[in-house]
Amino acid sequence: MHITQFTDYALRALIYLGTNDQRRVTIQEIAERFDVSRNHLMKVVNELIRNGYAEGVRGKGGGLRLARPAGEIVVGEVVRRMEPGMELVECFGSGCKCILDPECQLKFALSRALSAFLAVLDELTLADMLGEQEEAVLRLAPVPVRRKTKRLAAAGG
Amino acid sequence: MHITQFTDYALRALIYLGTNDQRRVTIQEIAERFDVSRNHLMKVVNELIRNGYAEGVRGKGGGLRLARPAGEIVVGEVVRRMEPGMELVECFGSGCKCILDPECQLKFALSRALSAFLAVLDELTLADMLGEQEEAVLRLAPVPVRRKTKRLAAAGG
Repeated sequence: MHITQFTDYALRALIYLGTNDQRRVTIQEIAERFDVSRNHLMKVVNELIRNGYAEGVRGKGGGLRLARPAGEIVVGEVVRRMEPGMELVECFGSGCKCILDPECQLKFALSRALSAFLAVLDELTLADMLGEQEEAVLRLAPVPVRRKTKRLAAAGG
Repeated sequence: MHITQFTDYALRALIYLGTNDQRRVTIQEIAERFDVSRNHLMKVVNELIRNGYAEGVRGKGGGLRLARPAGEIVVGEVVRRMEPGMELVECFGSGCKCILDPECQLKFALSRALSAFLAVLDELTLADMLGEQEEAVLRLAPVPVRRKTKRLAAAGG
């Protein structure tokens, strides 16, 4: 289970800009700090700029900065915008040829699970990623851990 | 955002076995129906057998079948067991060299989101994947859709 490296670097670049908000940061600097190709990071940063999360400042002392306060950048929204496709499995795509489709319920189950995944990230902003772990984690609703097999066993099934 | 093809095929193979529970199914048949390499599917099926989800029946009329009732095979558990790693991003792994670690809260946020993802699938069994869509979907708790930015805007932020 993965999110793309593209989204991973987008989130990390935002965190880096957020933790260095008192100064401008260059793409070269981020690329060196994360040991990632400058070309790859350039594409990531362009997407962050296009989506209004970061902005470039020209001239001496120029560089990148957040385009809005960290508290207004919702993590779930960043993930939705950066992921090239939210196609968890083949049958999410338009070209699905799976023989189980359209009777198969797997797609609906995974869609629902994906919504639950994103709902948690919709509760968090970039500000929460910048060092207030306890507060952020405490604010999140607990995730219920229930296993149907256990319920069945308890019911004598 | 993806689950691995390995897990995708594991789930689909289980669904295929579940929908053909009145007879034995060969690996060759599943490979042909899903248009996937027999070798790849063999590895998937071996994992399903090793984890007690499927079993092979030898001899004439032999083949694969579910090793337990579909209602006792929890989808979330299958995903956990089939995914080679639940490492959503690099920093989930043991070899993480990210400069943001250990201050970064992203890992905690994504862990929580992943738990929410799996909690939905823990509510569903293979039986729910076999054609009772409405019931299965109705039984799931609604996923809250809340965006912090909207709350901020409503509060005049």
